[in-house]
Amino acid sequence: MSKGRMEAFSDGVIAILITIMVLELRPPREASLPALFPLLPVFLSYALSFIFLGIYWSNHHHLLQAVKQVDGRVLWANLHLLFWLSLIPFVTAWMGQNPFATWPVALYGLDMLLAAVAYFILVRALLSLHGQQSILAAALGSDLKGKASVVIYLVAIALAFVSSWFACGLYVLVAAIWLVPDRRIEKTLAR
Amino acid sequence: MSKGRMEAFSDGVIAILITIMVLELRPPREASLPALFPLLPVFLSYALSFIFLGIYWSNHHHLLQAVKQVDGRVLWANLHLLFWLSLIPFVTAWMGQNPFATWPVALYGLDMLLAAVAYFILVRALLSLHGQQSILAAALGSDLKGKASVVIYLVAIALAFVSSWFACGLYVLVAAIWLVPDRRIEKTLAR
Amino acid sequence: MSKGRMEAFSDGVIAILITIMVLELRPPREASLPALFPLLPVFLSYALSFIFLGIYWSNHHHLLQAVKQVDGRVLWANLHLLFWLSLIPFVTAWMGQNPFATWPVALYGLDMLLAAVAYFILVRALLSLHGQQSILAAALGSDLKGKASVVIYLVAIALAFVSSWFACGLYVLVAAIWLVPDRRIEKTLAR
Amino acid sequence: MSKGRMEAFSDGVIAILITIMVLELRPPREASLPALFPLLPVFLSYALSFIFLGIYWSNHHHLLQAVKQVDGRVLWANLHLLFWLSLIPFVTAWMGQNPFATWPVALYGLDMLLAAVAYFILVRALLSLHGQQSILAAALGSDLKGKASVVIYLVAIALAFVSSWFACGLYVLVAAIWLVPDRRIEKTLAR
Repeated sequence: MSKGRMEAFSDGVIAILITIMVLELRPPREASLPALFPLLPVFLSYALSFIFLGIYWSNHHHLLQAVKQVDGRVLWANLHLLFWLSLIPFVTAWMGQNPFATWPVALYGLDMLLAAVAYFILVRALLSLHGQQSILAAALGSDLKGKASVVIYLVAIALAFVSSWFACGLYVLVAAIWLVPDRRIEKTLAR
Repeated sequence: MSKGRMEAFSDGVIAILITIMVLELRPPREASLPALFPLLPVFLSYALSFIFLGIYWSNHHHLLQAVKQVDGRVLWANLHLLFWLSLIPFVTAWMGQNPFATWPVALYGLDMLLAAVAYFILVRALLSLHGQQSILAAALGSDLKGKASVVIYLVAIALAFVSSWFACGLYVLVAAIWLVPDRRIEKTLAR
Repeated sequence: MSKGRMEAFSDGVIAILITIMVLELRPPREASLPALFPLLPVFLSYALSFIFLGIYWSNHHHLLQAVKQVDGRVLWANLHLLFWLSLIPFVTAWMGQNPFATWPVALYGLDMLLAAVAYFILVRALLSLHGQQSILAAALGSDLKGKASVVIYLVAIALAFVSSWFACGLYVLVAAIWLVPDRRIEKTLAR
Repeated sequence: MSKGRMEAFSDGVIAILITIMVLELRPPREASLPALFPLLPVFLSYALSFIFLGIYWSNHHHLLQAVKQVDGRVLWANLHLLFWLSLIPFVTAWMGQNPFATWPVALYGLDMLLAAVAYFILVRALLSLHGQQSILAAALGSDLKGKASVVIYLVAIALAFVSSWFACGLYVLVAAIWLVPDRRIEKTLAR
């Protein structure tokens, strides 16, 4: 089976998620500068989730570059990833409306954790299809970033109940780790 | 006529449907854990419909793999399928807001039934274009799952007026039947 | 310039328009059958607009099959068509909320008229790029349906001020004329 | 890395932005012509933003025609552009609800300015990948329009605090400058 439609469908879903989040940013009734201030936490939540979805899209793009074929199991591992990503607008809106409140911040981390686990499962499904000697396996290497992200999310969720500011700081840290694009695949493919 | 744009358009519509459903999941005003509880039926409806749309996308993807060309009749059979799929967010929202109420559960089943019939018509239109000796015909075989789904939906709609829990259980059963990916086409294409 | 992205962008816009219209179909609060009845005009407006957008997508698909290349003028003629199509959810919602009221029905016809004119301009832009001896010109022929639609829309808009039922009947007539797929292009390409 | 998915993803995001803006155009409750009049500024804001997004899509399409490959840096420069474009529905809605009010008009210009800067950064990232001797560099030339737009936006933002009508006039001027499609790339590619 060709990977074209799985790419197109994932692009579609992520493109829609990244844009419907902006609908939460309701224009204020008043036409003054101070009327914008209460929107700041909503805007920051939006920007953070935009970056996370951008990271997933970029990594998905890199990952699929090294993929030759897909099967039914891969399609469902991908849909599973898209399910947790599809909840990002919901957790973003809740966190934006209740800035730095414990439960919304923890739920945000939980959704991110489940998306990270789903991405890991997708990578496993692709590896089992392509084999440990494939370009894909070489390109992925030890996946240190992926493992570190899961650990940081777990710490952040626990810390949300102590200090939600700290948890948010950890989310920003994960985003920063990933913003450096995943050059492993680019390098391995170039060789 | 090439099938490329019909695939792209269907991917687009299903990707949008799968993501706008999440807009029904309104973040609660309060930032507490109990505030999330009333959202549980809405979330479960969403998850069920996400899976159904994922099944349609996955089967559509498998089906089109074995297709060589399309014509005007196939385009409209496909748009007809997309019409009933496009009502899934509506029936999902109604069922989510009125968990296990008779009419919403029955209407959900009716929409699923009409989508299943539309998929059947699409398959017929493709078969009449490709012939009974085509790879497509071999790949589809007797379509036992498709026929079983229609029967189960009919039973579920009738049962909704006796016990809507039972009807919902039957919807989950149909989803479970289809979650096993349609390997017929994969196998026939591989041969 | 290749036509690929113009097709993809148009598919995207039409796919989104066809699906966001369904957001107007708000689930009723009550979980009873009679609660659905007031939604009937909204549903019928939705179904009519779904068919019109389906016709535009199908014709656009047929038209682009015979197209070899595009230029900046064609891109803007296409965006101009998408602009009037993008207002369909608005006029559909207004007509659905005020069934058979004069102004909504007339505005619906006006938007349809402007979309038909925009489609005509797009066809002209493509013809001036491909020449009167091209496959495209042969495939399009005299465009009787296109001209008839414009006349029927004009009559329908005028009649909306006498009887909006009659105007709606004419819209259904235009849809029926076009539902028969545009075999001119299929036939000419096959030759 | 191939540019296909970056094109598809950008098409998707811009297609969604262009269509969700129309959701701000709420159908009035009354079915009369005067009920439409208050919507005029919202409609004009929508039309202006539709044209701006159409310009970005058209220019993006032209730009990518001359591009051979992309890397991680280009993907993020593109996501950065999409971020500022994704705020257009928000600033459009605020300006439409408060026609010719100072702050909404200024914020609209600021978002346009940041999008223009992001487009400039994307062009730089592509040039540094393709080299100053590439077709891309030849096709882009001195980018007079891009530089002029940035200057006009800066003037318009400042002028919004004197006369917001004048600022809006300048936005229309920028749109008019760009509506003439960017023939540099078409010409250079044709050679």
